[in-house]
Amino acid sequence: MGRTLIQGGIVVTAVDTYEADLAVVDGKIAAIFGPGAAPAIQFDRILDAKGKYVFPGGIDAHTHLDMPFGGTTSSDDFETGTLAAAHGGTTSIVDFAIQTKGDALRKGIDTWHAKAEGKTAIDYAFHMIMTDVNESTAAEMGTLVNEGVTSFKLFMAYPGVLYADDGMIFRAMQRAGEIGALICMHAENGIPIDILISQALAKGHTAPKYHTITRPQIAEAEGTHRAICLAEMAGSPVYIVHLSAERALKQVVEARDRGLPVYAETCPQYLFCSADDLARTEGEYGAFEGAKFVCTPPLRPKEMQEDLWRGLRTNDLQVVSTDHCPFCMKGQKELGRDSFAKVPNGMPGIETRLYLLWDGGVRTGRISMNRFVEITSTAPAKIFGLYPRKGTIAVGADADLVVWDPEKKHVLSQKTLHMRVDYSPFEGQEVTGGPSYVLSRGNVIVEDGKYVGKRGDGRFIKRSTFGL
Amino acid sequence: MGRTLIQGGIVVTAVDTYEADLAVVDGKIAAIFGPGAAPAIQFDRILDAKGKYVFPGGIDAHTHLDMPFGGTTSSDDFETGTLAAAHGGTTSIVDFAIQTKGDALRKGIDTWHAKAEGKTAIDYAFHMIMTDVNESTAAEMGTLVNEGVTSFKLFMAYPGVLYADDGMIFRAMQRAGEIGALICMHAENGIPIDILISQALAKGHTAPKYHTITRPQIAEAEGTHRAICLAEMAGSPVYIVHLSAERALKQVVEARDRGLPVYAETCPQYLFCSADDLARTEGEYGAFEGAKFVCTPPLRPKEMQEDLWRGLRTNDLQVVSTDHCPFCMKGQKELGRDSFAKVPNGMPGIETRLYLLWDGGVRTGRISMNRFVEITSTAPAKIFGLYPRKGTIAVGADADLVVWDPEKKHVLSQKTLHMRVDYSPFEGQEVTGGPSYVLSRGNVIVEDGKYVGKRGDGRFIKRSTFGL
Amino acid sequence: MGRTLIQGGIVVTAVDTYEADLAVVDGKIAAIFGPGAAPAIQFDRILDAKGKYVFPGGIDAHTHLDMPFGGTTSSDDFETGTLAAAHGGTTSIVDFAIQTKGDALRKGIDTWHAKAEGKTAIDYAFHMIMTDVNESTAAEMGTLVNEGVTSFKLFMAYPGVLYADDGMIFRAMQRAGEIGALICMHAENGIPIDILISQALAKGHTAPKYHTITRPQIAEAEGTHRAICLAEMAGSPVYIVHLSAERALKQVVEARDRGLPVYAETCPQYLFCSADDLARTEGEYGAFEGAKFVCTPPLRPKEMQEDLWRGLRTNDLQVVSTDHCPFCMKGQKELGRDSFAKVPNGMPGIETRLYLLWDGGVRTGRISMNRFVEITSTAPAKIFGLYPRKGTIAVGADADLVVWDPEKKHVLSQKTLHMRVDYSPFEGQEVTGGPSYVLSRGNVIVEDGKYVGKRGDGRFIKRSTFGL
Amino acid sequence: MGRTLIQGGIVVTAVDTYEADLAVVDGKIAAIFGPGAAPAIQFDRILDAKGKYVFPGGIDAHTHLDMPFGGTTSSDDFETGTLAAAHGGTTSIVDFAIQTKGDALRKGIDTWHAKAEGKTAIDYAFHMIMTDVNESTAAEMGTLVNEGVTSFKLFMAYPGVLYADDGMIFRAMQRAGEIGALICMHAENGIPIDILISQALAKGHTAPKYHTITRPQIAEAEGTHRAICLAEMAGSPVYIVHLSAERALKQVVEARDRGLPVYAETCPQYLFCSADDLARTEGEYGAFEGAKFVCTPPLRPKEMQEDLWRGLRTNDLQVVSTDHCPFCMKGQKELGRDSFAKVPNGMPGIETRLYLLWDGGVRTGRISMNRFVEITSTAPAKIFGLYPRKGTIAVGADADLVVWDPEKKHVLSQKTLHMRVDYSPFEGQEVTGGPSYVLSRGNVIVEDGKYVGKRGDGRFIKRSTFGL
Repeated sequence: MGRTLIQGGIVVTAVDTYEADLAVVDGKIAAIFGPGAAPAIQFDRILDAKGKYVFPGGIDAHTHLDMPFGGTTSSDDFETGTLAAAHGGTTSIVDFAIQTKGDALRKGIDTWHAKAEGKTAIDYAFHMIMTDVNESTAAEMGTLVNEGVTSFKLFMAYPGVLYADDGMIFRAMQRAGEIGALICMHAENGIPIDILISQALAKGHTAPKYHTITRPQIAEAEGTHRAICLAEMAGSPVYIVHLSAERALKQVVEARDRGLPVYAETCPQYLFCSADDLARTEGEYGAFEGAKFVCTPPLRPKEMQEDLWRGLRTNDLQVVSTDHCPFCMKGQKELGRDSFAKVPNGMPGIETRLYLLWDGGVRTGRISMNRFVEITSTAPAKIFGLYPRKGTIAVGADADLVVWDPEKKHVLSQKTLHMRVDYSPFEGQEVTGGPSYVLSRGNVIVEDGKYVGKRGDGRFIKRSTFGL
Repeated sequence: MGRTLIQGGIVVTAVDTYEADLAVVDGKIAAIFGPGAAPAIQFDRILDAKGKYVFPGGIDAHTHLDMPFGGTTSSDDFETGTLAAAHGGTTSIVDFAIQTKGDALRKGIDTWHAKAEGKTAIDYAFHMIMTDVNESTAAEMGTLVNEGVTSFKLFMAYPGVLYADDGMIFRAMQRAGEIGALICMHAENGIPIDILISQALAKGHTAPKYHTITRPQIAEAEGTHRAICLAEMAGSPVYIVHLSAERALKQVVEARDRGLPVYAETCPQYLFCSADDLARTEGEYGAFEGAKFVCTPPLRPKEMQEDLWRGLRTNDLQVVSTDHCPFCMKGQKELGRDSFAKVPNGMPGIETRLYLLWDGGVRTGRISMNRFVEITSTAPAKIFGLYPRKGTIAVGADADLVVWDPEKKHVLSQKTLHMRVDYSPFEGQEVTGGPSYVLSRGNVIVEDGKYVGKRGDGRFIKRSTFGL
Repeated sequence: MGRTLIQGGIVVTAVDTYEADLAVVDGKIAAIFGPGAAPAIQFDRILDAKGKYVFPGGIDAHTHLDMPFGGTTSSDDFETGTLAAAHGGTTSIVDFAIQTKGDALRKGIDTWHAKAEGKTAIDYAFHMIMTDVNESTAAEMGTLVNEGVTSFKLFMAYPGVLYADDGMIFRAMQRAGEIGALICMHAENGIPIDILISQALAKGHTAPKYHTITRPQIAEAEGTHRAICLAEMAGSPVYIVHLSAERALKQVVEARDRGLPVYAETCPQYLFCSADDLARTEGEYGAFEGAKFVCTPPLRPKEMQEDLWRGLRTNDLQVVSTDHCPFCMKGQKELGRDSFAKVPNGMPGIETRLYLLWDGGVRTGRISMNRFVEITSTAPAKIFGLYPRKGTIAVGADADLVVWDPEKKHVLSQKTLHMRVDYSPFEGQEVTGGPSYVLSRGNVIVEDGKYVGKRGDGRFIKRSTFGL
Repeated sequence: MGRTLIQGGIVVTAVDTYEADLAVVDGKIAAIFGPGAAPAIQFDRILDAKGKYVFPGGIDAHTHLDMPFGGTTSSDDFETGTLAAAHGGTTSIVDFAIQTKGDALRKGIDTWHAKAEGKTAIDYAFHMIMTDVNESTAAEMGTLVNEGVTSFKLFMAYPGVLYADDGMIFRAMQRAGEIGALICMHAENGIPIDILISQALAKGHTAPKYHTITRPQIAEAEGTHRAICLAEMAGSPVYIVHLSAERALKQVVEARDRGLPVYAETCPQYLFCSADDLARTEGEYGAFEGAKFVCTPPLRPKEMQEDLWRGLRTNDLQVVSTDHCPFCMKGQKELGRDSFAKVPNGMPGIETRLYLLWDGGVRTGRISMNRFVEITSTAPAKIFGLYPRKGTIAVGADADLVVWDPEKKHVLSQKTLHMRVDYSPFEGQEVTGGPSYVLSRGNVIVEDGKYVGKRGDGRFIKRSTFGL
């Protein structure tokens, strides 16, 4: 670790935009100088940021690396996934550890620590998925919080698998309220959905497009409203993951208008893809092409994209995470050739988040640069207890930084992206904007599109309790 | 059966108010004459209605007679309950038959037919409470509809007892949609409520007032929203029973604003009693006095009464039923001396509905006379398939009629009311307005406060399917 | 006047549907008999209504006959207009008398009495348009109410012509509140609209389609909200005329949800025509064809039609009136060849209202028959104080009746319709349903499409004060 | 101008909180150092900020200094008013210049420049109040924008005085949209209010409390909705000044939920005072005591305070300004002894804003420190084009700074406050928190409660156009 000066860039935070030189010492931002004020001689390395923006590194608060699901395992592990993240300008992730039904939370978190330790290119933290909420796991919640795992996720979907009933949810929320933890909710009522799926399959409706037809947005709106009500009764905040639908957003808007501590994220796939993609019947995989776009909640009608953008502007949606959960078409998605219900749910995205949001969000004028930084870094840092270490550019913060070239053009393609998956949902799409340098705790780890860090250098981050 | 003329009254329907003579022949309204136009000589009996109003007889769409609940049985049976109803101007009831978990619907409906047959003073019909929804009971739904049992009730409350999960509810709604049946919903999320109850009892909070504290209105708002969402997904109408709370009403308002076929009733106890009554600690039963007012959903803060009146005016609430479910203090309510959770849930009301709504609704100007008729008779008749036989005054309709003296004063008291229960929630309250005559299918059954009918003359009414 | 029996029809009121014979004596409904119960021998004439429906005659609460506007005069006078109305099943109208700025209300009402007296085929009443609200006209409001003119209209549109400022509106509402009168509001903010019109014309945008582009729905939503606020401040009810737009409807919905006495009508042109018609450039008049569809508020995007139908179903819209204000293309609409702003505003409709609502409303399942009766007759009768004389079928009511053949087919065409205007907006459209007989106070005035009444037999109706 | 180091404080911005030393050079923030990283030797002066917070100086975007109103003049001029502001930690104001009806904007702005130039203790800028909007003043708007006067205010209140009709407002908004200016709106429909005032006075209701009774919140809600509609039609942003009422807030919430560029401020008097104060009848002035609290919009029922706090938390209200417009009781407020309508409207507040918001907002947990900075400084800077020069702590920004002692206690009193007015609405109230140092462009101007600056050192600030 030495002394690095990032010179001449435009620093962008969630609120400010200014020209400055950033002095990085021992992995942290040590000083911020007005143009020309930095004593350049004192630095080991000077990174030229002229004409570039300097952002806090991206934080992806929703990833599923090396995760068993639907009879297979998500195709990126902690090594490949974090490497891809780094290439895309993301310097921290919060991944989901899973409690196996009947086992202790401890076992789940240990398993995930083992999956990640020593393998990651960037810093990482964990949420904990709970499949049992009882006296014993409620007690463990406190332990985990002390260990820096301060958020817990429950599912209203996937009955018989990850599903938690309202009693489990309510108890977990009460407990979270006591200990300053945050409940993340997959807020989609999976019970009527499973009935609709059986009914669709019984009619021979097996193609990928039935994935969205059998998961109507009402089911998500219902789950969202219920999650909010249970949280209000429990006196705790709640965070809705991967919000995809206009009517679910409406529930969040109404709750926030009343001043409730309700938070929600959406994901790039809901902003840039739609039910039309799921209905694709042309391409390499023919009638099965849509399987590339099977994720849950499902892709929605195209017109809802603008509702989500509006939600991002009005701060009714605070975060864009990826729900990165990649499965290869070959051998994985193919499991669902005969039934959309067997297509593993998930799409790759950990690497492309900033590209898409810059190109399709900032450059189109849908969001400002400051808002871009907020939704990709500052807000998730604050909501999930990584702040003030991560998520901003201020003296004392970790020097997780991206020097961003706003005019760099490249074509998104499975061939050049670094995620370990055999397709890209955005294959062939040109985007403008990308990182010149990515720094993790002061170390340049990506430079001009190449990984130059030391593998396994990422560290587990103990997160603080919820403090908004 | 003969020919009766009801002479000189002001006929009031849901829409019209006019002076007329009503000719009743063979139990039906045969002709309506303008003043003086009736050939009086042709009638066997002439009832003088001068200075009185003539309404269609009251229809109480929510009663629980002779019902086992909470380790005891509601204290009115079909004989005493319908007699009391008749005294109060109600000429039809729809009572709830119950399917015992695991048994066929057939067994439940047969049991209820046996309870009622030959015993009632007025006509009656049945809803069916379902505790299982599976292939077999779904098939039976069709059979019951053919037999005139065209509505089915499910409970979101009472886990482990009457509780139906979202899958059962959704399947029942889908099936109801197919066969023209209507789902009635107790829309209160009982799962977090049961947790709150355990937590309250664990803290020694055993008094009746904790009944409302542990059943917050959010639980009812949540259930109401969920019921509406499931019905919308299933493409079926839904009827919310005994709506008690402002936020639950708001859910109904929003759904109806969108044009959804969502209906809701409230009950006199929510319009005239409040959480203050539940908190009573003076009177014959001292600290336990509030037990008289334990019903579910619980009584709410007094200010919500005006929300419900507004809902009745705006037609967001369409019906006032009683949820008549009486339990004596002695030997029944007392079961809950040590725990509010063991107080049998229910209040008497079958006899006092029209008194209270006239005195506290029409006379206070909160609702018009026409609206009074609509919410007590016409709307339940239409919603539950009793119309056009019941629920209006028109030629061809059953002559179920009330000749109402708008100025008659009397004091509500357990001593003079006819319900078989050892207290009245309205003990000592004077009300103005009451029936001079009550006719059931053309027969005078109550005259000047005395039952003059033939016991057991009430008939089972086969209801039509939902047609609004 | 004699004794007529309408035999064997299905009587339809706002709430009931039943088979009955109606006895009409001396112009009023004298008795209603169940099938077969009428002593047929006593009648002078028997009208066979078998297989037909019997409705209360239509009431059109918004017509402009013989009205000077935009430098010309509406092409129907009280003779031709009411004749056309009768042919279409409408038996009462409420027309708008106008106060000329600076003159007394008296002068305006006298002028309109003179226009109508002795000329009408059906009964008629007047609203009064006020262009001054001051001490003197406020006093006159009381006089007019005593003379049966119980509603007053003000315009937020047409600055410099009919426009009333908020002070005038507020004073008129306060006064209306005192005397039981009702304020009707043209709720479209004409001030920014006039600016948009000038700006459009300055750009050479002169075609009819700019009529709707320069009158955006926000202007109507704004006016509607303001009218409601002023009425709420004044403590008076308000009636929004010719509501055309989704966002204006939303304002009414919100007010009614709060229980405010806010009422609104829409018109057939907003239910069946759209901005597409205004943009027509083919037909007899080429690029000017759209002028046939210039009315104010303007026609809206087609998708708003369903919002209005929903409003009719949810009772957020209570009335369908016509705003009948016909201008011939030749010599009248042509005044606006060079500027859409000079096209006289108005469309013909007094004759076709019931045809369109039956064919496009009842037959399509959008509204029930009872609701059809309510919005075309009962509701306007109640709101405007014609009830119980008009607007229902009940003993004692005027025998203003329509015997309606639900299956009669005919083609709407300027050639066969009776309105004095040289085009029909619905030219060539086939509709099903039409009157077999139309009765005005017991006299058959239309029989099989022919006028058989005595010209000038219509009477002025003194209306009661607002009583809902 | 020299080099100052602010050492050891906790820097608080709208988004960040961190320990740092701030280097101020030539009036600007030159560098930000992590603890201990600053080369202390290089500085002329070191201010010890240990245990203190360092905020960007307050920006008060709504003041009325030396303003003629209601037959008198606000009692603070630019010297006394800005001195008081400085004492309270406010380092910039945006005052309202007024166009006299019929005169050019130029004349108004020149007058205000003359009032302020060389007299102010802090930097200042101007909004322009327009009383005419016509071709000439619309053209001048562009000129003024070029001169740094980039916002314009119009009044829906005060008919005959400052009132602008909807046409003026709409034209001004269209023009503002073209040139990047922002319209500030006094959104209270003054027309019905003036009628209510006359009616109240006619009944002898002259006491101060009638000020709020005659200005019901509906009038403000109406104005707010109308302002938003006009802005939406014009395609321009709008800023609602001094929002006081729950229903007005609801209008802003709904607009912002739809993503419209609608902004609103509230003021400390609406957060901390209420209609109860206006109704005071005890104290030095007896029945007239309430006159101290006459401001417009009027103080509202106490329960609305929490609505406003919620709005501040949810960012539906973005700014707290003061509407500082002081009048002495003696000789000024007394003009209204006989009529509340003659009491000059306005309250003093320029000095106490930060005290009250810290003590009653931050210390009570209603808002966070970051939000405190945002609503008092960053948001007004961004909305009104002072950013990035003012409103944040970042290198390159003006060193307008407050070193804030969070535990300093003092008693608010007319005797010790510096505003030139003979009363304080908060007389005798103890507050915790206050400035240790206040810096304007790097110069310490207040130190331990004493003004140590150079009088007249404040400069006019040319503001940028609206850029959010």
